[in-house]
Amino acid sequence: MAAPRFLILADGDFGPMTSKTANSVIRYLPERTVGVLDRQHAGKTAQDILGFGGAIPVVGTMRDGLAFGPTAVLVGIAPQGGRLPAAWRNWLAEALDGGCDLWSGLHTFLSDDPVLAAKAQAAGRQILDLRKPPADLPVASGAAKAVEPFVVLTVGTDCNVGKMTAQLQLARELNAGGIRTRFVPTGQTGIMIEGWGIAVDAVISDFVAGAAERLVLQSAEGADVLLVEGQGSINHPGYSAVTLGLMHGSCPDGLILCHQSSREYIGDYREAAWLRIPPLREYIRLYETIGSAVHPTRVIGISLNTYDLSDEAARQACDSATRETGLPATDPVRFDAAPLLDAVRLGRQTYLNGSRGEAVSAPAVGRRG
Amino acid sequence: MAAPRFLILADGDFGPMTSKTANSVIRYLPERTVGVLDRQHAGKTAQDILGFGGAIPVVGTMRDGLAFGPTAVLVGIAPQGGRLPAAWRNWLAEALDGGCDLWSGLHTFLSDDPVLAAKAQAAGRQILDLRKPPADLPVASGAAKAVEPFVVLTVGTDCNVGKMTAQLQLARELNAGGIRTRFVPTGQTGIMIEGWGIAVDAVISDFVAGAAERLVLQSAEGADVLLVEGQGSINHPGYSAVTLGLMHGSCPDGLILCHQSSREYIGDYREAAWLRIPPLREYIRLYETIGSAVHPTRVIGISLNTYDLSDEAARQACDSATRETGLPATDPVRFDAAPLLDAVRLGRQTYLNGSRGEAVSAPAVGRRG
Repeated sequence: MAAPRFLILADGDFGPMTSKTANSVIRYLPERTVGVLDRQHAGKTAQDILGFGGAIPVVGTMRDGLAFGPTAVLVGIAPQGGRLPAAWRNWLAEALDGGCDLWSGLHTFLSDDPVLAAKAQAAGRQILDLRKPPADLPVASGAAKAVEPFVVLTVGTDCNVGKMTAQLQLARELNAGGIRTRFVPTGQTGIMIEGWGIAVDAVISDFVAGAAERLVLQSAEGADVLLVEGQGSINHPGYSAVTLGLMHGSCPDGLILCHQSSREYIGDYREAAWLRIPPLREYIRLYETIGSAVHPTRVIGISLNTYDLSDEAARQACDSATRETGLPATDPVRFDAAPLLDAVRLGRQTYLNGSRGEAVSAPAVGRRG
Repeated sequence: MAAPRFLILADGDFGPMTSKTANSVIRYLPERTVGVLDRQHAGKTAQDILGFGGAIPVVGTMRDGLAFGPTAVLVGIAPQGGRLPAAWRNWLAEALDGGCDLWSGLHTFLSDDPVLAAKAQAAGRQILDLRKPPADLPVASGAAKAVEPFVVLTVGTDCNVGKMTAQLQLARELNAGGIRTRFVPTGQTGIMIEGWGIAVDAVISDFVAGAAERLVLQSAEGADVLLVEGQGSINHPGYSAVTLGLMHGSCPDGLILCHQSSREYIGDYREAAWLRIPPLREYIRLYETIGSAVHPTRVIGISLNTYDLSDEAARQACDSATRETGLPATDPVRFDAAPLLDAVRLGRQTYLNGSRGEAVSAPAVGRRG
């Protein structure tokens, strides 16, 4: 099918810190985004609200949005309380009538809504519930350890620290440099950006690793490097199962550790001040130990999210991470991604020189220039 | 409700190494088991086939089974290929007509079968699909770390090494010794034996830890010790997600490491000779490191499954495990469970003396007499 042109539904919650899915689609697919539906900011642009996204207009009605010619309406935020608001259902029905498909990453499936399902069928449009896993997922066989490309997984000190963003940045720049690189989406936002993938957090736990394995096998052919989108954190009390299943199923040869420099506690438990984020060295030990119990792997670099720091503090954070770990560190959105690109290139070279199935050696430390 | 009396459906697969669920129910609930339906062994007894279970009769028709007065038919094996055979559907319908409930731990839910669902409703009987998770599971909050009882989780070197059996043995003997102990079921067989629980391997991965947490919270009141049934293994490529979610959600204070002494490779990958089972010391390091990243925990003893060894070799295996780890080791089914009972008692004492939230100290080594 032709690449979709999206109208993003983000009513009532469009903003730099709230609408994560909407914002990522605008950042990575601005050319495919015709507008944003949010009544409170109607008349402004994405640039006005987010600081990026240029002239993408914000509209206040579905009719105004449809006038920009979208082929799909993409749900870019989660509704409060999880249930579909009546206004949204009306808009989505109007979008189907207007010739649009629906793309949603909500836990509640739009295709289970009788009104929307009937209308989609009548109009010949598709409802894509991106979080709905395939029905036939296997238990992991270990097949991912034998694929040709160099497989890199992002792992984190917490949720929402930049594991998807780092891989998207690296994929773009590695491809630009002639290394055939595929981003492997494992969450709803990554799936929206790439148009394929499996939301592993919605998979039954017996099959999480099998889902990760299938994604690696599906994307391996003709690729030099696979960049697998990471999820959660190995010490996140709620989501560590997703993190470990993803790691053991995808059999990464290298890991990039992602961290938000200013964060002190695991975010979902911050109010209880329960789990202080340990030093990066400790995460490296945890991830390498538990990952290598199934397939040898090494952390090859550190990706920092410094969005809330001054330039000076951000540079210090990168230097400090490198001093602590002996690994290249950068914020690939704010600064140059080169240290991590070098780490992936070097890791792949070591991997090609050795035999698949042995951990790559630690890279020489690349410093920002 | 009154305790159910089970007729176990195990047609074509009743045997010591095949019908794991049927066998566990017969071992732990012989007084509630009125018979086994298996055409190939009709006329024999459970004792004839399994070496335990006494005079429990094997019958060849549902009519013969119903004559023994069951209140429920329990599906004790998984059908080849996962789909419900026509003969089984007929038997189960006959059982509903005969006044029985249905208990099943299959991945395919009996209550989704239109014929059986209609018949159950008409007959006023229940279909209990024990693997169907509650719809309202939360993301883990960490609440399990604050419960009163001493929480012990069995962890394994692989699947099917005795993690449920060890806990059932210990629960029985600790209760007999006056320590109020609850077995916490996390898999279909444990749920059948206890009549409650959640099959965590069937829970969506985002909520596995939340399911484990709920089980601990539900069973904490009035208990001195909780013995949580473990699942999978931390280095099992297919199921490690279940293992870690269960550990991080249940926040165990102590771990019992379970191993089948004669096993050399992770079982599901044995043909590929892929993953050799590392030394017990290595597992202790893995489980303590990754578990303590969320809640401090220690391995307090080793439970061995020596069913296929001679008495002499089994005793040597226990001695060897103790030498390697410095921890008490026994086969609690074959030999005396005392070394593990002592380890739990001592672990609990240390836990009571200290404050919840610190790892219990390693126990003094208890040796079999």
